[in-house]
Amino acid sequence: MPYVNIKITREGATAEQKAALIAGVTELLVTVLNKNPATTFVVIDEVDLDNWGIAGQSVTQLRQQQSS
Amino acid sequence: MPYVNIKITREGATAEQKAALIAGVTELLVTVLNKNPATTFVVIDEVDLDNWGIAGQSVTQLRQQQSS
Amino acid sequence: MPYVNIKITREGATAEQKAALIAGVTELLVTVLNKNPATTFVVIDEVDLDNWGIAGQSVTQLRQQQSS
Amino acid sequence: MPYVNIKITREGATAEQKAALIAGVTELLVTVLNKNPATTFVVIDEVDLDNWGIAGQSVTQLRQQQSS
Amino acid sequence: MPYVNIKITREGATAEQKAALIAGVTELLVTVLNKNPATTFVVIDEVDLDNWGIAGQSVTQLRQQQSS
Amino acid sequence: MPYVNIKITREGATAEQKAALIAGVTELLVTVLNKNPATTFVVIDEVDLDNWGIAGQSVTQLRQQQSS
Repeated sequence: MPYVNIKITREGATAEQKAALIAGVTELLVTVLNKNPATTFVVIDEVDLDNWGIAGQSVTQLRQQQSS
Repeated sequence: MPYVNIKITREGATAEQKAALIAGVTELLVTVLNKNPATTFVVIDEVDLDNWGIAGQSVTQLRQQQSS
Repeated sequence: MPYVNIKITREGATAEQKAALIAGVTELLVTVLNKNPATTFVVIDEVDLDNWGIAGQSVTQLRQQQSS
Repeated sequence: MPYVNIKITREGATAEQKAALIAGVTELLVTVLNKNPATTFVVIDEVDLDNWGIAGQSVTQLRQQQSS
Repeated sequence: MPYVNIKITREGATAEQKAALIAGVTELLVTVLNKNPATTFVVIDEVDLDNWGIAGQSVTQLRQQQSS
Repeated sequence: MPYVNIKITREGATAEQKAALIAGVTELLVTVLNKNPATTFVVIDEVDLDNWGIAGQSVTQLRQQQSS
């Protein structure tokens, strides 16, 4: 009965890529812990760059510095 | 002081339905655990069908198979 | 496919009370949104009083003030 | 390696205000617990007023009552 | 900068199994989305059987029925 | 009505340090967004070193390498 929440920045991940994450993490839980895939949930959250911070700055700020 | 997070697929839940979830879960916490409703929070997240997986597939994929 | 996370302070909720929360919130999602209970998950987190804050103080601090 | 999730109602917080939250909470973790800012994550979720409940009502409902 | 939270029932997952989940989900995010592993976080929560519900019952209740 | 969840590794943070995090993050939300502290919640999760991963390894593994 695992529940997995994956948070990534919102940068155009495709439906195919998100399906690959869902398939891959479900298979991982089957392989490592013998979990039942039928009751394995995966929820992907895509987070705006203004709303994600690392090292005390938003990703928006970090990208602006890297590109300048 | 409970905090409740309800995640559902984004499929057109109305404001009235979401208000019913908020009222119902708050009442449940009062009834079962005598919690104070004034400090009971409920946050509802609506998740796109591409971003919710079960049984190793996205809900988008599962719906396509069911309808074909 | 709902997922519900209920966070409460750790103050001796019994297994029966937790089962009542699980049954009640699952029934609520069936009634309000016609969700399938077989794929409705509920996870209850019990949080130590030192680790829960409201109004800028931990619950431990608030209880000490109320009892003094 | 702290991870901080801040949930607020979606009411027009600006990129500058969100950057101030990210900077402030990261600095707090450095000051209080000597955490490394380079591996401190902050994720801000902005929640629609229909989707946030307190005291058994959505914020939308509470605002309507306060203004009437 | 992904953040992944894996919730499983507390049933004796070993440190090696948890390390395999961490390695596997990090590799998945590198492969599918080209994420930087250095800033990929994984947090595993192990949840007591009384605190996890599915189909309106706690896992404790479900296991008792299956074994009787 | 903000809700803040702070996840840190379980390494002996004291009740005083946790109270300082609660006070500091509540004050930050008042200062930056004029939020009402009376309805600001903070929940701190302390995570075992085996259950926190970064760069594809658990913190337990990373500490062993650093000390060897």
